Amino acid sequence: MHAEMVRANPRSRLVSVHDVNPEAAAALVGDTQVRSAASPGEIFDDPEVDAVVVASVTSTHADYIEAAVAAGKPVLCEKPIDLDIARVKSCQAAIAGSDVPVQLGFNRRFDPGHRALRDAVKAGEIGDLVQLILTSRDPSPPGREYLLGAGGMIRDMTIHDFDLARFILGDDEPVEVWATGAPLIDPDLCEIGEIDCVMIVMRTAAGRQVFLNNARQAPYGYDQRVEAVGSEGMLQSSNRTPHGLLRYGASATAAQMPYHDFFIERYRDAFVAQLSHFLDKATGRDTEVPSFDDGLKALALAEAAYRALNSGRSERVGS
Amino acid sequence: MHAEMVRANPRSRLVSVHDVNPEAAAALVGDTQVRSAASPGEIFDDPEVDAVVVASVTSTHADYIEAAVAAGKPVLCEKPIDLDIARVKSCQAAIAGSDVPVQLGFNRRFDPGHRALRDAVKAGEIGDLVQLILTSRDPSPPGREYLLGAGGMIRDMTIHDFDLARFILGDDEPVEVWATGAPLIDPDLCEIGEIDCVMIVMRTAAGRQVFLNNARQAPYGYDQRVEAVGSEGMLQSSNRTPHGLLRYGASATAAQMPYHDFFIERYRDAFVAQLSHFLDKATGRDTEVPSFDDGLKALALAEAAYRALNSGRSERVGS
Amino acid sequence: MHAEMVRANPRSRLVSVHDVNPEAAAALVGDTQVRSAASPGEIFDDPEVDAVVVASVTSTHADYIEAAVAAGKPVLCEKPIDLDIARVKSCQAAIAGSDVPVQLGFNRRFDPGHRALRDAVKAGEIGDLVQLILTSRDPSPPGREYLLGAGGMIRDMTIHDFDLARFILGDDEPVEVWATGAPLIDPDLCEIGEIDCVMIVMRTAAGRQVFLNNARQAPYGYDQRVEAVGSEGMLQSSNRTPHGLLRYGASATAAQMPYHDFFIERYRDAFVAQLSHFLDKATGRDTEVPSFDDGLKALALAEAAYRALNSGRSERVGS
Amino acid sequence: MHAEMVRANPRSRLVSVHDVNPEAAAALVGDTQVRSAASPGEIFDDPEVDAVVVASVTSTHADYIEAAVAAGKPVLCEKPIDLDIARVKSCQAAIAGSDVPVQLGFNRRFDPGHRALRDAVKAGEIGDLVQLILTSRDPSPPGREYLLGAGGMIRDMTIHDFDLARFILGDDEPVEVWATGAPLIDPDLCEIGEIDCVMIVMRTAAGRQVFLNNARQAPYGYDQRVEAVGSEGMLQSSNRTPHGLLRYGASATAAQMPYHDFFIERYRDAFVAQLSHFLDKATGRDTEVPSFDDGLKALALAEAAYRALNSGRSERVGS
Repeated sequence: MHAEMVRANPRSRLVSVHDVNPEAAAALVGDTQVRSAASPGEIFDDPEVDAVVVASVTSTHADYIEAAVAAGKPVLCEKPIDLDIARVKSCQAAIAGSDVPVQLGFNRRFDPGHRALRDAVKAGEIGDLVQLILTSRDPSPPGREYLLGAGGMIRDMTIHDFDLARFILGDDEPVEVWATGAPLIDPDLCEIGEIDCVMIVMRTAAGRQVFLNNARQAPYGYDQRVEAVGSEGMLQSSNRTPHGLLRYGASATAAQMPYHDFFIERYRDAFVAQLSHFLDKATGRDTEVPSFDDGLKALALAEAAYRALNSGRSERVGS
Repeated sequence: MHAEMVRANPRSRLVSVHDVNPEAAAALVGDTQVRSAASPGEIFDDPEVDAVVVASVTSTHADYIEAAVAAGKPVLCEKPIDLDIARVKSCQAAIAGSDVPVQLGFNRRFDPGHRALRDAVKAGEIGDLVQLILTSRDPSPPGREYLLGAGGMIRDMTIHDFDLARFILGDDEPVEVWATGAPLIDPDLCEIGEIDCVMIVMRTAAGRQVFLNNARQAPYGYDQRVEAVGSEGMLQSSNRTPHGLLRYGASATAAQMPYHDFFIERYRDAFVAQLSHFLDKATGRDTEVPSFDDGLKALALAEAAYRALNSGRSERVGS
Repeated sequence: MHAEMVRANPRSRLVSVHDVNPEAAAALVGDTQVRSAASPGEIFDDPEVDAVVVASVTSTHADYIEAAVAAGKPVLCEKPIDLDIARVKSCQAAIAGSDVPVQLGFNRRFDPGHRALRDAVKAGEIGDLVQLILTSRDPSPPGREYLLGAGGMIRDMTIHDFDLARFILGDDEPVEVWATGAPLIDPDLCEIGEIDCVMIVMRTAAGRQVFLNNARQAPYGYDQRVEAVGSEGMLQSSNRTPHGLLRYGASATAAQMPYHDFFIERYRDAFVAQLSHFLDKATGRDTEVPSFDDGLKALALAEAAYRALNSGRSERVGS
Repeated sequence: MHAEMVRANPRSRLVSVHDVNPEAAAALVGDTQVRSAASPGEIFDDPEVDAVVVASVTSTHADYIEAAVAAGKPVLCEKPIDLDIARVKSCQAAIAGSDVPVQLGFNRRFDPGHRALRDAVKAGEIGDLVQLILTSRDPSPPGREYLLGAGGMIRDMTIHDFDLARFILGDDEPVEVWATGAPLIDPDLCEIGEIDCVMIVMRTAAGRQVFLNNARQAPYGYDQRVEAVGSEGMLQSSNRTPHGLLRYGASATAAQMPYHDFFIERYRDAFVAQLSHFLDKATGRDTEVPSFDDGLKALALAEAAYRALNSGRSERVGS
């Protein structure tokens, strides 16, 4: 998906691709002049490559960020930076001092609805923000294999909500986290110590209340909502359907289509905008994108949530 | 229903009831002190009766209106006045000069949504009104017996839309009518010369365009909508469900409840408000209610629509 | 409001009224044959009174429940039973063994939308219930005087949500509660130790997750929503507007009316149904109504929430 | 827009461009290898060009269709074919017998919502279709210059609705048309004999009723709706907003975003799908696209509508 978006964007040209699955890379390259790199190193060394998009497995992210920065190539890297916060910090140290742009793949920041909500909050449209409620439910659970490598539901899935909450909150950072979670949809997940339903409450430095609510299964489609409650009004960034057909019959009226199936459909506009912002950043234009530090802060919230899950009490967010 | 509303209203007291079906009257009266009148005449002669509500068969309306006016009792009479416009005019002549209030049962004028739309149009909220679109579909068709006495779909059903359109248009009367109709849901209706789907377009004196659209069967419930298009905006008075349950599943999202079943449920608030306005009118307070003349004008539109149905051309509205 | 509903219901007759404000009682009684009782005792002693509705200040509830039960009169009493759980328990002891019906005024159980959601959950329409989310926000905060006597936001306002959650959960009781609260809308409330925004998470015996979310001010109207997430679908009981006018202009499309102003408008149908169920109960018909025990259990949840607010950890629900 | 879509589609390559405005062509071509053709003829003669997209002024359409067919190049041509039905028929004669694909630019057939509605009607989801209602309102009126060359509102704007109605009706062709129109938004349009509000009713061979409703100005955005009423249900293809932000304040709840501004935004998915179907057709794959004959039939409906506008009666559709 990322490669196709690079190719379709009039401001970028796809130069070289590497995939652990060579057939996937070959299919993508086809009979075009795009190179099929034998290793990621080939890409970082390629003088024709101006910027890099990393969408590999999580365990490689920190290495590739370091390599891209060392090669002086702006990098857009999928989240999370690493499951191990120590590795994230060593990566942070390794790239410290460099001014090569590093952008984290928190695509939801670029969703037009979520962003319009953030802008309206920032503009004071609802007075003072007092409560923020994020609902995020996947259509169906991933397989066991994925789960075993994903680092836990909160690090893998809630991480997007931590970042989106921080994006909307602006300067007012969450300082305290409380969480409850359990395998309610698939109780067998307890065999691998995993959960599939989670509720998290955060308190910010200014005392605002934030609620995050995730489930790994929502048969009615990918459920992605944000609700911001202010002293003078409320805003909701609501779900989207692929088109506007409504059905009326003996048992229901105005029944909408199921939601977009999953993130590729739901956040297509966001992915397009994310790349556009990355191209701005990579070419030195003024823009605000999720930084390495944002990736670290989202992970710190996940860490605090896991501590809360064990302690049964609200936990302070580490730094 | 009317009797129960008179009883429930704190400003009125149910004194006497007559029903062609004596058991119905008896059931209503029960062991209360309400009288069961042996004839309508008993009611008109009853000195304790201050005002009369007429909900009998159409063929009796003109007689009862005349009797009520003669007895000096304000009357709220169901629509239409009569299926024969000549009888309506003789009734008009008979009551001419009297100042006894006569109110026609065009209950939709009192629906809070339709009325709010009218008020917003009148207040100029959408600039100049240019198009008005009324949709009115019954949940299921009435039986043959009813249809044979109802005077035709346009006089029986569309009459409400003619009146509601006139209510919203204010001083700008429809002057030209075009219509098409056919028995599309139950083709056997052609045996009795009846139709079940109709589309009517009207042009007003000021040139505004009005569309009325009726069907005798809508399996998703009683469909009652008004759409007003202006030079600066649009207003819709939309349908109502009994409560706000929304269903989300694999095949639909945000599926609402079926609409209110029929007019008794859909227009309950309107019936309550209609009686309240009648009590105002009957006790001399300042209020605007659908008059005998409104009943006549709605019938004139129905007449023009029937002429258009036969001629295939738009027809001028008679007076 | 309660007196008027008793008067309007065809199955009940208003016999006697007592109000601490004699003018209010007099205005209500008017020139009817309803008695104006000099004291509550007069009502409990009145042989013509078959059942009693109590809507007095909270501190009198337990006394009146005891008096009604002693007099053998079924009683419908507003919530909460008392702010002091010890007094609730002494009242419980005082009425133990009696079979006189005692119904608590948890009117939301009778809201058609909330009840339809409960019925659909019970019928397995969404598979297994996994998460339950209740949003309840008042249009504007009450005055200081009211707040000083209300026993705290959680006992006064959230108590309805505790009961509604228990109603939907059925046999699966909440066993653990966590809470956060603060005066975010009116920071001056800290002067009286009161809060105006609260988020509460509960875990049930079966592990289900429940989120309650209250605010004392919602300028867009009385916000009352329930969302039930199941393994096979989702249900929402959504907000209601007084009528269905939608506005379309240069800055917004399909803008709905503000919600019903407050509980008297929003829950009118619920209050009517509540009285109807009380009449069933009082006359020995089979019906399920919120009991004294339900009042006690809702208070126990409020107690646990207050403990959690202080401890920062989830607290077990006492019995 | 068409050129950019050809460039972005992975199945097509932009070879050569001609524009009456040379700067526009130059800007589009930029420093790419796309040719800037000095005349349309250069394109039709270019052996590297496999297929042609025509988006020039209406008066050139018939000539270019003939040239493309003569050159054996499949052509996707914007509607209408010509304002003069005689020229359309001579073009029809000129290309008769050729099997070179000619596709008309009725993009709305490819809108996912409208198409899903058509498919559901065809699949019998609402039983027998009885009424079809199309609403189509532009955000703001075009300038005088455009209007003078556009051939009249019905040929220019309603033509899309004629085609969309035919698409949904399938084999059941409209046989009778009635119309009313006037310059209600801009009365000065009568100076050039133009109208800006129109209501059209059509009857099909099978007796179905179709209503088309257009306005040249809708300040709330580009309003594009289809409603299909059947014996067993109703379907609506409703409007779309750019994203899902909802606003709640003291004067409105759930206020949605304004609609997409105009056709380029609203029908982007449709344009993409239209090109994809054209590529299928041009490469011999099985697909159903709007044909030359569809263009002719839509014009015949427009002709009948203009006759009805003058005669005041419903007119038969010519062939």
